[in-house]
Amino acid sequence: MTDHATRAAVVALYEAYAARDLDRFAALVHDDIEWIIYGPVQVFPFQGPRRGNAQVLDVLGAIGKDYALERYVPEIIVVDGERAAVMSNAAFVQRATNRTLSMRLADFLRFQDGRLIEFREFTDTFDAVEQALGKWLEV
Amino acid sequence: MTDHATRAAVVALYEAYAARDLDRFAALVHDDIEWIIYGPVQVFPFQGPRRGNAQVLDVLGAIGKDYALERYVPEIIVVDGERAAVMSNAAFVQRATNRTLSMRLADFLRFQDGRLIEFREFTDTFDAVEQALGKWLEV
Repeated sequence: MTDHATRAAVVALYEAYAARDLDRFAALVHDDIEWIIYGPVQVFPFQGPRRGNAQVLDVLGAIGKDYALERYVPEIIVVDGERAAVMSNAAFVQRATNRTLSMRLADFLRFQDGRLIEFREFTDTFDAVEQALGKWLEV
Repeated sequence: MTDHATRAAVVALYEAYAARDLDRFAALVHDDIEWIIYGPVQVFPFQGPRRGNAQVLDVLGAIGKDYALERYVPEIIVVDGERAAVMSNAAFVQRATNRTLSMRLADFLRFQDGRLIEFREFTDTFDAVEQALGKWLEV
């Protein structure tokens, strides 16, 4: 894929997610995607590794069950051939408490045939856990 | 900067760090750099925001005081104009305990005039804290 095609796919993917349009998002995800959000599954059960389009849609459904998307703004987009990296400024409302969690997300992506086939997401999970629990962690 | 020049600067920067050659690293860092490693400063005092070449070198010195670099392998390098993103596979030996901490690091970089002027690093800090403390965090 050219940088131009990859950038268009990245923009389409993040716009679909920000719009909570899961059908449009799913159409941009490869059947054989390797997916991971790094983090503690005991606090965020939708984190950890997944494989395949269906598991990824389950992840998005699980996030949406616990959190309402409030803000998802890609601030940096770096595109290089079939790969991209995106840093976003995001906020989610925890449905159980109505508290807002704010975070930056760092994603590494790879596309194949116009669709996402590799996805890795990083965030400051220590901070995200404190926000989710509404208390400081004891260290 | 062209993609080619940025890629060369990225490779030089990570090679200098992996070689623990702080003089060579410093020469690649802009005087006005904006720098942040996202994470809990009560566990990793070298995390958090810094400004300027001298503060960045202090960070590297502080990391080296507590941790010996064992492995630092950039696995994904994405270059786009003056920006880059790098995902690395890293390991550090905690000097106080001789335990090894393993992690993936996600960096977003921007260069100006051949030198690093913006740096943001993400990792799964919840996991890194558990490794540093040698115990599970209670959640």
